[in-house]
Amino acid sequence: MSNRIAVVPGSFDPPTLGHLDVIRRAASLYDELHVLVVHNPDKEGMLPIALRLQLLEQSVAESGIEGRVIVGSWSVGLLVDYAQEVGAGVLVKGIRSQGDVSYETPMAVVNNHLAGVETVFLLADPAHSVVSSSLVRQVAALGGDVSPYVPSAVARYLRSATAKDF
Amino acid sequence: MSNRIAVVPGSFDPPTLGHLDVIRRAASLYDELHVLVVHNPDKEGMLPIALRLQLLEQSVAESGIEGRVIVGSWSVGLLVDYAQEVGAGVLVKGIRSQGDVSYETPMAVVNNHLAGVETVFLLADPAHSVVSSSLVRQVAALGGDVSPYVPSAVARYLRSATAKDF
Amino acid sequence: MSNRIAVVPGSFDPPTLGHLDVIRRAASLYDELHVLVVHNPDKEGMLPIALRLQLLEQSVAESGIEGRVIVGSWSVGLLVDYAQEVGAGVLVKGIRSQGDVSYETPMAVVNNHLAGVETVFLLADPAHSVVSSSLVRQVAALGGDVSPYVPSAVARYLRSATAKDF
Amino acid sequence: MSNRIAVVPGSFDPPTLGHLDVIRRAASLYDELHVLVVHNPDKEGMLPIALRLQLLEQSVAESGIEGRVIVGSWSVGLLVDYAQEVGAGVLVKGIRSQGDVSYETPMAVVNNHLAGVETVFLLADPAHSVVSSSLVRQVAALGGDVSPYVPSAVARYLRSATAKDF
Amino acid sequence: MSNRIAVVPGSFDPPTLGHLDVIRRAASLYDELHVLVVHNPDKEGMLPIALRLQLLEQSVAESGIEGRVIVGSWSVGLLVDYAQEVGAGVLVKGIRSQGDVSYETPMAVVNNHLAGVETVFLLADPAHSVVSSSLVRQVAALGGDVSPYVPSAVARYLRSATAKDF
Amino acid sequence: MSNRIAVVPGSFDPPTLGHLDVIRRAASLYDELHVLVVHNPDKEGMLPIALRLQLLEQSVAESGIEGRVIVGSWSVGLLVDYAQEVGAGVLVKGIRSQGDVSYETPMAVVNNHLAGVETVFLLADPAHSVVSSSLVRQVAALGGDVSPYVPSAVARYLRSATAKDF
Repeated sequence: MSNRIAVVPGSFDPPTLGHLDVIRRAASLYDELHVLVVHNPDKEGMLPIALRLQLLEQSVAESGIEGRVIVGSWSVGLLVDYAQEVGAGVLVKGIRSQGDVSYETPMAVVNNHLAGVETVFLLADPAHSVVSSSLVRQVAALGGDVSPYVPSAVARYLRSATAKDF
Repeated sequence: MSNRIAVVPGSFDPPTLGHLDVIRRAASLYDELHVLVVHNPDKEGMLPIALRLQLLEQSVAESGIEGRVIVGSWSVGLLVDYAQEVGAGVLVKGIRSQGDVSYETPMAVVNNHLAGVETVFLLADPAHSVVSSSLVRQVAALGGDVSPYVPSAVARYLRSATAKDF
Repeated sequence: MSNRIAVVPGSFDPPTLGHLDVIRRAASLYDELHVLVVHNPDKEGMLPIALRLQLLEQSVAESGIEGRVIVGSWSVGLLVDYAQEVGAGVLVKGIRSQGDVSYETPMAVVNNHLAGVETVFLLADPAHSVVSSSLVRQVAALGGDVSPYVPSAVARYLRSATAKDF
Repeated sequence: MSNRIAVVPGSFDPPTLGHLDVIRRAASLYDELHVLVVHNPDKEGMLPIALRLQLLEQSVAESGIEGRVIVGSWSVGLLVDYAQEVGAGVLVKGIRSQGDVSYETPMAVVNNHLAGVETVFLLADPAHSVVSSSLVRQVAALGGDVSPYVPSAVARYLRSATAKDF
Repeated sequence: MSNRIAVVPGSFDPPTLGHLDVIRRAASLYDELHVLVVHNPDKEGMLPIALRLQLLEQSVAESGIEGRVIVGSWSVGLLVDYAQEVGAGVLVKGIRSQGDVSYETPMAVVNNHLAGVETVFLLADPAHSVVSSSLVRQVAALGGDVSPYVPSAVARYLRSATAKDF
Repeated sequence: MSNRIAVVPGSFDPPTLGHLDVIRRAASLYDELHVLVVHNPDKEGMLPIALRLQLLEQSVAESGIEGRVIVGSWSVGLLVDYAQEVGAGVLVKGIRSQGDVSYETPMAVVNNHLAGVETVFLLADPAHSVVSSSLVRQVAALGGDVSPYVPSAVARYLRSATAKDF
């Protein structure tokens, strides 16, 4: 495992500007960054996995993020199994609030115990600190404009989907 | 939109003494107060909406709350759409704990972004700080006495409902 | 009700080393300790109640916990009804974080109001502060090794269950 | 006391962009807004009171804040005594975090008990959520550029003061 | 050390109704309760230690608290040294908020490590959850009425002291 | 600035096992790690700076920490000035609790704004989550045994200092 390869896991349902900010900053900290759509096969989300991957790839491309960023998905086991497969020694999590840290703490400790993978936390930019995928889903479902909170690729998709009675 | 008209949104399932305290105080701060039962059509609650409205109206009447209080419901879109419809420039939320503030923060910011509607927070009276609708539902479901936590109209209803095998 | 008899309620799905630590310490503080599997008949857990009781009994036995410990279950009403039935004046809850205290506060206040039963909180040993039943379920479901977090009786059971395509 | 007159108390040592945002929003919610420099005569701050008042007045003027804003100071007793003197029924506090709410809660409750004065909380704009007077003092003392965090009148003053070996 | 003997430590500068509530409830949980004024010789408080002890004794007497309550003070070493001297196996701390728990956690863990003394936490009655000695000192210093927050012996003392230019 | 060079700032008064754990883990994540004693010349601590540096060096050596670790001190300006001087693009902070994150957030945001230096947070090992320098100072001052909380070099020093009437 290399401390130059990191994974940014998330559900990205949909990707937000907060996610993109963390991805951009993490990409500048590591030589190779895996943005990983982690999903639970038993739980349906708003967007299908393939679409999340496509929107992430477009968003990373359009944001001019520099560095080696690889977008992928994972549903078959522990996140650290993926990390070990790609040789990543670090997980990166964006945190927006105290509550996020508490929520992430147990799994971060377990991932360290199970596989020696470190979790490093990056603070969300304050301007994005209220933006989450669930907020975007909630506002979009009620017909509100979510374009201030998501990359333009996501905004375009959500507009067209709504037009088609999404 | 007027800064003299405010909305107190909630699920009120059922209304509690904490809700009534916030309604009473908000009614004294604004010229017109809309108490709004906001509900998600996809999620069934304990009490039907019509009953929540009736219990709120009875409770407001019995509590001797002064000021112009209008009870209504909303399920068709963003809360700020209702606010704009009735000309309200302010949302009022009661907060019982740190956690409540964190929970309310994202939507308060969005409501300000989307429509310029301000959210003002009133601290729950400490004597009511542990009382929530979910606590009342939980205690009532287990057969406990909830009369110290709810307006008398609600207590009467819950007693009669329990008697009918609720 | 006696202040020498206490109840440690929980879902224990499954029991963890954190639970055992709290049980051990509570057993040294009271003359009689009831470890009570509280469950909601409407909500299915990972392990059946009978198995949780069996694993708790084995774990208490294997841990060399001294003092009078009684393992039981309860699903028919308020926890304080059980407390009154066995003459217990005290509930003991282990807390791992600030969030746990906030979560437990409303019911602790209600239990005191309804029946004069006190809730005392014991801090989890820091070494166990990230361990919860839900973490164990999550890691076990993904095929990770949970033996550092659970009593050996639980670890043995989970290993054999996994072997049988659990 | 009128619910149309409000007080925004603070130490404003120095005023920040977060303060100005709260003042602007509060000014739009009330007919008359008192921005009050509250200070403890026993505790010396960074800036003398007269200077804080002058910087607040310049900042309010330069920010184009609309509405009736009165800048003043208070050191002789309870804040509610001032509120009663000017007929204000409302105190407005900006909150940046969960911790701010906890810190403000006891005095808000006491002010309500003592004098029936309500405290309403406005969330800081997320973009300003990390900005506090103490952060500005700390960064300025170490020679850092604080202009992104303070009104331009304050930035000008701090630059000139530093030039004079402040 | 006996699990029937407990210590309630505090600075009690001055004692509040919140303190008295915790003392009353702790007195009903243990056979012998030591209310201990812990003070740092290097730090001057509002009230001299002898006066705090006298006000605690009067307050305990006037509150009709049942059970064996012993009032004392301690300034010469670790709290657990006192606990061991009087044979107490338990420390009792009242907690009013999440923050209180975080603040108390490190010393509670150390006291357990150093001497096997357990700390049990009792939740403050919500009605007293905002009342602290520092709030009382602050309000009293500004000339406010603190009688809703303190035992009557303390209120009498503070009134007479204020009359004498306190 | 390089993302392969990091700074772990702190007051280290004295260094604790929690510090050493964070230093060890950070040393494995970066090619060069600066452990920096940051101090305020106006504020006297328990140990002189030179002694803190010496204890840190001994502790790093005795702990078998692998990687390039440089111990230094800084008192003349912003932490990011030091980072830029040594070419470090990353600050590493250990966090033990939600409160730590809130405390560190403003300066982390400012350091990013001022100089593009990222702050990454590592969770303290739960076993050390209650250990802080201030706890160690407090326990040591009262004559308690702090050896479970500090590196052996620090424990030896504190014992000898106490023997000399420290």
